[in-house]
Amino acid sequence: MTGIDITVFKGSSSGKIVESTNHKDGLKSDEVLLKITHAGLCGTDLHYKTDDMVLSHEGIGIVQEVGSEVTTFKKGDRAGWGYLHNSCGHCDECLSGNEIFCPERAMYGFADKDQGGFASHAVWKAGFLFHIPDAISSSHAAPLMCAGGTVFNAMHLYGMLPTDRVGIIGVGGLGHLAIQFAAKMGCQVVVFSGTEDKRDEAMKLGATEFYVTKDVQELKIGAPLKHLFVTASKQPNWDFYLNILAPRAKIYPLTVSTDSITLPYMQFVVNGITLQGSICPSRGTHVKMLKFAALHSIKPIVEEFPLTKAGIEKAMGKLENGDVRYRAVLVAEK
Amino acid sequence: MTGIDITVFKGSSSGKIVESTNHKDGLKSDEVLLKITHAGLCGTDLHYKTDDMVLSHEGIGIVQEVGSEVTTFKKGDRAGWGYLHNSCGHCDECLSGNEIFCPERAMYGFADKDQGGFASHAVWKAGFLFHIPDAISSSHAAPLMCAGGTVFNAMHLYGMLPTDRVGIIGVGGLGHLAIQFAAKMGCQVVVFSGTEDKRDEAMKLGATEFYVTKDVQELKIGAPLKHLFVTASKQPNWDFYLNILAPRAKIYPLTVSTDSITLPYMQFVVNGITLQGSICPSRGTHVKMLKFAALHSIKPIVEEFPLTKAGIEKAMGKLENGDVRYRAVLVAEK
Repeated sequence: MTGIDITVFKGSSSGKIVESTNHKDGLKSDEVLLKITHAGLCGTDLHYKTDDMVLSHEGIGIVQEVGSEVTTFKKGDRAGWGYLHNSCGHCDECLSGNEIFCPERAMYGFADKDQGGFASHAVWKAGFLFHIPDAISSSHAAPLMCAGGTVFNAMHLYGMLPTDRVGIIGVGGLGHLAIQFAAKMGCQVVVFSGTEDKRDEAMKLGATEFYVTKDVQELKIGAPLKHLFVTASKQPNWDFYLNILAPRAKIYPLTVSTDSITLPYMQFVVNGITLQGSICPSRGTHVKMLKFAALHSIKPIVEEFPLTKAGIEKAMGKLENGDVRYRAVLVAEK
Repeated sequence: MTGIDITVFKGSSSGKIVESTNHKDGLKSDEVLLKITHAGLCGTDLHYKTDDMVLSHEGIGIVQEVGSEVTTFKKGDRAGWGYLHNSCGHCDECLSGNEIFCPERAMYGFADKDQGGFASHAVWKAGFLFHIPDAISSSHAAPLMCAGGTVFNAMHLYGMLPTDRVGIIGVGGLGHLAIQFAAKMGCQVVVFSGTEDKRDEAMKLGATEFYVTKDVQELKIGAPLKHLFVTASKQPNWDFYLNILAPRAKIYPLTVSTDSITLPYMQFVVNGITLQGSICPSRGTHVKMLKFAALHSIKPIVEEFPLTKAGIEKAMGKLENGDVRYRAVLVAEK
């Protein structure tokens, strides 16, 4: 490859989406050129829409060309990527399979402001791309790259067992995937949502119980929860939920929040509760997530929009209003 | 045993220690009568000094008599107890060796307001008493029953490794034991204290580094910490300490605090930090703690006071002023 002009869609100080063209020189020996076909829209993108950077970190595409030393992908393969685009390979975190925490990690929006899913093409290191299992369509694969990875990571790394009773707060982009993963892992899945609106869909996705929280003073759910995944767009009322946790329960705040987190101290300590920070997965866990989703037909419910300036703006507007059910995917024209 | 009059020292609404006599009828088949020789004073006792209950949950004594079905203790044995005095034996927590979280657990101050370490005798179920290893004196054993158990529990249950770099905030009753346990477990032990006052003792106990925190705006400690044990009498400045934690670090708030706990949210989540509630151990862990302390000569530094009304009041006054170095033990007259 001698060089390519890439169409990209970026945030801007006004919050409007800007279309522009970036030139990319030839591939380095360990890089792969993708033609993007699908790109998911994540809540995080809303946080960056006023930044001069290409949005979307849930990209799926077709390999066009590979660098001279790439052996893991070939032209025509489907490939996807998530948050992580590089890591040092030799620090304690990398050596323990936790390269998402590598101090030299390169992540979405910090890795390369000139690249992202909302674009015609992207060039990434082969080592940070994932093969997409045949059983997963590209439209379904896109939201798995961040939303799916994030909920799976929390469920996979911190001791959740198939015999556990788990709670999921919020039925949105993350929540509707969390319900499916937890159900397929064998758990009792107890879902909390503001209103009755999403009850039927939540139950179809695998919930075993559904509780409405709006205007409720005290939750009564029978047996307490061993794990609580917080996927709502805001932090919940922590006192409210601590009362329905089993001893030694774990709480996973997966919501992006700029507020501090404030918990009742003694109730937390005396019951041996764990508050577990967790983000998107390192690569080993990401691969397990894709295989598990393929095996169990875990599929995001997506709304498709054209991968154009107008399509992106429409999808972002809908997401801001909380109207996306449940994940927006931008689809490139053929 | 046909019955015995027991001298006890209780809290009272005025905060003064009250001496009185309780009558105990004969032993049940699973009970043990102890003559108390040593009883530790814990910060928790200060919280209960205005309650009408016998204080101290760090008791050591000599077995006087055992119930008809007790096979694990005999007359003349040394025995000690901590927080836990009963559990149901059949709930999920009991069956998984976590009976300290049994919903029917009976604990200090809730188990039996008429019994405690500040007394001439006590009657407890044999199953909730511990043999004291020969290598540990009774005066040293007393503070291990709560303070020692509490720090060991946090270090034993949640994945701390001998190769880890760990921080300990506060050099007091818990902190001075935490330093010893972590050092004997092979860790790098980084100690934080308000002033220089306790540096020499901390280093002698096994600290590898010592940092003064008073009036310090930003901590610089070189390599970051994998575990942070908070043993100071108040919650620390969390922002201050989050900056010196490694990714995936764990924080153990062991301090008793009636305030809420407030942490910076995104820094916590993005670095995969764990906030781990932890209290005193279940029995299996308590036994391991005593064996480990015996093997490695881990010894509380104690100040002894006579186990009398005057002795208890003197010890409690000193503890309230923060003047005990490092654990007060009340010793019965022969």
